[in-house]
Amino acid sequence: PNLKGFVDGVFLSHDADLGFADFVFTALPHGMSMNVVPGILDAGCRVVDLSADYRICDRPLYERHYCEHTSFELVDEAVYGLPEIFRKDIMRARLCANPGCYATAAILSLAPLSGLCDLSQTVVDATSGTSGAGAGAKRSLLYSEVCEDLRPYNVTGHRHEPEMNHILGRLDPSFDLCFTPSIAPTIRGILSKAHVLSELDFEEAKKAFEKAYSDEAFVRIAESASTKDVLRTNMCEISLHAGGKRTVIVSAIDNLVKGAAGQAVQNMNLMAGFGEAEGLERISCHP
Amino acid sequence: PNLKGFVDGVFLSHDADLGFADFVFTALPHGMSMNVVPGILDAGCRVVDLSADYRICDRPLYERHYCEHTSFELVDEAVYGLPEIFRKDIMRARLCANPGCYATAAILSLAPLSGLCDLSQTVVDATSGTSGAGAGAKRSLLYSEVCEDLRPYNVTGHRHEPEMNHILGRLDPSFDLCFTPSIAPTIRGILSKAHVLSELDFEEAKKAFEKAYSDEAFVRIAESASTKDVLRTNMCEISLHAGGKRTVIVSAIDNLVKGAAGQAVQNMNLMAGFGEAEGLERISCHP
Amino acid sequence: PNLKGFVDGVFLSHDADLGFADFVFTALPHGMSMNVVPGILDAGCRVVDLSADYRICDRPLYERHYCEHTSFELVDEAVYGLPEIFRKDIMRARLCANPGCYATAAILSLAPLSGLCDLSQTVVDATSGTSGAGAGAKRSLLYSEVCEDLRPYNVTGHRHEPEMNHILGRLDPSFDLCFTPSIAPTIRGILSKAHVLSELDFEEAKKAFEKAYSDEAFVRIAESASTKDVLRTNMCEISLHAGGKRTVIVSAIDNLVKGAAGQAVQNMNLMAGFGEAEGLERISCHP
Amino acid sequence: PNLKGFVDGVFLSHDADLGFADFVFTALPHGMSMNVVPGILDAGCRVVDLSADYRICDRPLYERHYCEHTSFELVDEAVYGLPEIFRKDIMRARLCANPGCYATAAILSLAPLSGLCDLSQTVVDATSGTSGAGAGAKRSLLYSEVCEDLRPYNVTGHRHEPEMNHILGRLDPSFDLCFTPSIAPTIRGILSKAHVLSELDFEEAKKAFEKAYSDEAFVRIAESASTKDVLRTNMCEISLHAGGKRTVIVSAIDNLVKGAAGQAVQNMNLMAGFGEAEGLERISCHP
Repeated sequence: PNLKGFVDGVFLSHDADLGFADFVFTALPHGMSMNVVPGILDAGCRVVDLSADYRICDRPLYERHYCEHTSFELVDEAVYGLPEIFRKDIMRARLCANPGCYATAAILSLAPLSGLCDLSQTVVDATSGTSGAGAGAKRSLLYSEVCEDLRPYNVTGHRHEPEMNHILGRLDPSFDLCFTPSIAPTIRGILSKAHVLSELDFEEAKKAFEKAYSDEAFVRIAESASTKDVLRTNMCEISLHAGGKRTVIVSAIDNLVKGAAGQAVQNMNLMAGFGEAEGLERISCHP
Repeated sequence: PNLKGFVDGVFLSHDADLGFADFVFTALPHGMSMNVVPGILDAGCRVVDLSADYRICDRPLYERHYCEHTSFELVDEAVYGLPEIFRKDIMRARLCANPGCYATAAILSLAPLSGLCDLSQTVVDATSGTSGAGAGAKRSLLYSEVCEDLRPYNVTGHRHEPEMNHILGRLDPSFDLCFTPSIAPTIRGILSKAHVLSELDFEEAKKAFEKAYSDEAFVRIAESASTKDVLRTNMCEISLHAGGKRTVIVSAIDNLVKGAAGQAVQNMNLMAGFGEAEGLERISCHP
Repeated sequence: PNLKGFVDGVFLSHDADLGFADFVFTALPHGMSMNVVPGILDAGCRVVDLSADYRICDRPLYERHYCEHTSFELVDEAVYGLPEIFRKDIMRARLCANPGCYATAAILSLAPLSGLCDLSQTVVDATSGTSGAGAGAKRSLLYSEVCEDLRPYNVTGHRHEPEMNHILGRLDPSFDLCFTPSIAPTIRGILSKAHVLSELDFEEAKKAFEKAYSDEAFVRIAESASTKDVLRTNMCEISLHAGGKRTVIVSAIDNLVKGAAGQAVQNMNLMAGFGEAEGLERISCHP
Repeated sequence: PNLKGFVDGVFLSHDADLGFADFVFTALPHGMSMNVVPGILDAGCRVVDLSADYRICDRPLYERHYCEHTSFELVDEAVYGLPEIFRKDIMRARLCANPGCYATAAILSLAPLSGLCDLSQTVVDATSGTSGAGAGAKRSLLYSEVCEDLRPYNVTGHRHEPEMNHILGRLDPSFDLCFTPSIAPTIRGILSKAHVLSELDFEEAKKAFEKAYSDEAFVRIAESASTKDVLRTNMCEISLHAGGKRTVIVSAIDNLVKGAAGQAVQNMNLMAGFGEAEGLERISCHP
């Protein structure tokens, strides 16, 4: 409804003739993208897929957490669309698997620690706004239910946990994190706290983050990250906190932008050779 | 303001003649209670103190996290006011140190694991509503700032972490937890998630919780704990979740009731020989 | 869910044998109560009906705003369940029509003006929390839609407008108010502002309100009414404001208590000869 | 804080040498602008003033509602900065008085009715988010106070009422509206409902609105206006509703954009000969 009066596009069926299109964003439920994407690629389009169907190149792992895969031959070709880590691969990709929202926040907050310490004793505890659950009318998402509630869900079984470990394991095999999500009364935003229980040189860790992200347009190192000032932007804000035997890395994103549609545009920009930040320069409003 | 028309009590100065009183609740800032409580005890009253001043019987630990203590001789006498664990001591106490809000939620979610496993690799990640920060007019607590923000604070340095470890260490010396709090847009409620990274027999753990709490009026084991149905009540709702190499125990309280004033009344009831639940039978409203 | 562990009642079908029951509360959609209530009365029960089906004793008016009536013969017998105005009738009633939530707030804020001035130029503008729309899963009631929105609905066509005029017209035929509701991001609460554009002696109006409500347990005259301190209680808070050519009367209720279930209990208490406030003494919490 | 990393401007004192500046926005409290603006004009700058100090060219009226005026000679020169009504005057202005937030919403919703009917029996009932009260730390604006409250204020004495009547009276002397504001739990947004109790040809009224606003970039006629889709934009959304003896015109703006800073930029654009929508093209996000 926010686009009324500004956009006059019309909807086409997904099996329409796509000859006019260079790029297609597929935003279908997990298990449905896998049936649609092959045809779109065959029509000569490049694809950024927002489902989980092409994120995990370990077939048993995917099928244990999702369902039988009908186009697994494309998974090897697909590139995981986290530009800050896989930019070069994305630029050459025909099929880009856009990351999960929690996975984006968690992976960006942990990837720079690769090789610095044992990462097997790591807890990621993250809280999301309700838009992450989609726009379908569910009773548990009613205002009256969400307001004044703090509620965990899928406490030890969320499907972004294997996604995180699968991707981070490619960077450092010691990664073996535990992930727990909760929902809080906000529309947008993910606040992720990665607790690393490990001997770690904090100054070295800080340098690793600066090195990894100082040239990035969409990662900002802050004193203390929170979601407010990344809302409706493609920014990921990260802060590091030393504390005795553990280190905490906080990351904050807008789940619908850096956690979904914004990152998809960033990936398309890379695939198409556009400026990486085209269409994504919006700065957050405050308050 | 909610009491207008219902209560006609008047305010007295804290140094008024307290001869008429049997009990005094002291709800002063940390560092101020210690100067006021001795006189109240001398006047013959029994005291439930809601500050941190008598919670920690390790003087250097207290003074490192708070300030110089001016009546430390009373700390040995004081009893930590968590009835589910220290009920017998509370019944005999003259001075009861009411626990911190986060500490209440965390300790209740971990105490039954004492002796069952190594508890040194434990992360407590908790989220609170804004009333936990008090009623003072601070810009960071304005509606415009809190709404649509998810914000961690004191990420590795919150003073309830030593309180939790101090009390839990009396039950099992292996306790050495890391605590991180966040604030979310709710008025009331604390949702605490204790992540125990340890070999643990989950069925044995469940039995330990049932044994510990089945007779308790104010602890309820649930499928999945959340804050909504404990708001404005003295209830602590707890759920256990098995997950591969770790176990997660979720606990939910109202920070102003079981986390503060309600627990203080529960403690007074015990000290005075009243029914433990007197004045605390309120059931939550939904939604 | 708030009652889990506290209540062990079981659900019966509405056509079960009701021989054991003295009272039945019918909380069915408009148009359905009319089919169920006659049988319940025949079974010897007294009924408080929370639908609109027995509120309006003008058949064409009812049928224009709702639907064909199948048990209109009971409407003449039914009493409109606003105890502050129709207490004596309620005490003798076999069938009590519990008022609409907006109607409760508006009628209580205007009834004392009966006979004092011309009331034909009156605007009632009221805002409600989302629980007033029920617990059904509608997209427009999702947290993501309601949060940060201020939204009018049925701007000139809400069915409580004829209900208000119908009831107030029995007190003063000059009543002819215009009603507009909006929804705001709260769970509970109705704030109603009655703007009376009429010559009116303000001191006389204040006295009329004091006379009408000084002995009422559930109406409180305040400096400035707002919903916060009536939430989860059966109280209606009212404030009067003089202003040049118009007078504004603000009233605030909890739509689910004084606007629905609480008032239903108040009516049952009167019908059964119980204390009128039995079960309704709860005081609001703050904040 | 949302601008960190994007803007490197520095603060100057208001009495710094302004020789380098063409335009100054003065955003000072009422009563302070009047002391600062004359010097800025003398320095050769053009000014958009966001206070009330130059909005009302009736000195006794201003001083009754605000305070003694120290530069009233500038009021005659100043132009009321509502571009949809006073565009030509604004283009030539040296000093532009930016309208109040409520006044913007109300005047835009009523101005097209000028000359169509008697407008003396008009009620404007408006609800605002909390950012309208500023960023100062007041207890009444704390999250814990605002959340779950619906609260009227200045029920018959808000200073935007004389501003509305003063400006609308220049368009049609019959205007004599009554204004009542409330606060609801949102950060941003004003929802204004103008209830016109008057004989009015509804089709004629609709045509008047279409004629007035069809070419405007920042006014949108909608089926049913609400704040959600104008948040963080300079848009005013308006809907008209016929209803028996009265007509309701709903208008929705973002109080900080069309109600303040955005309209100030729109005014500067006109004064400077820039495109009127420069810098204001942002489309709202949903949800």
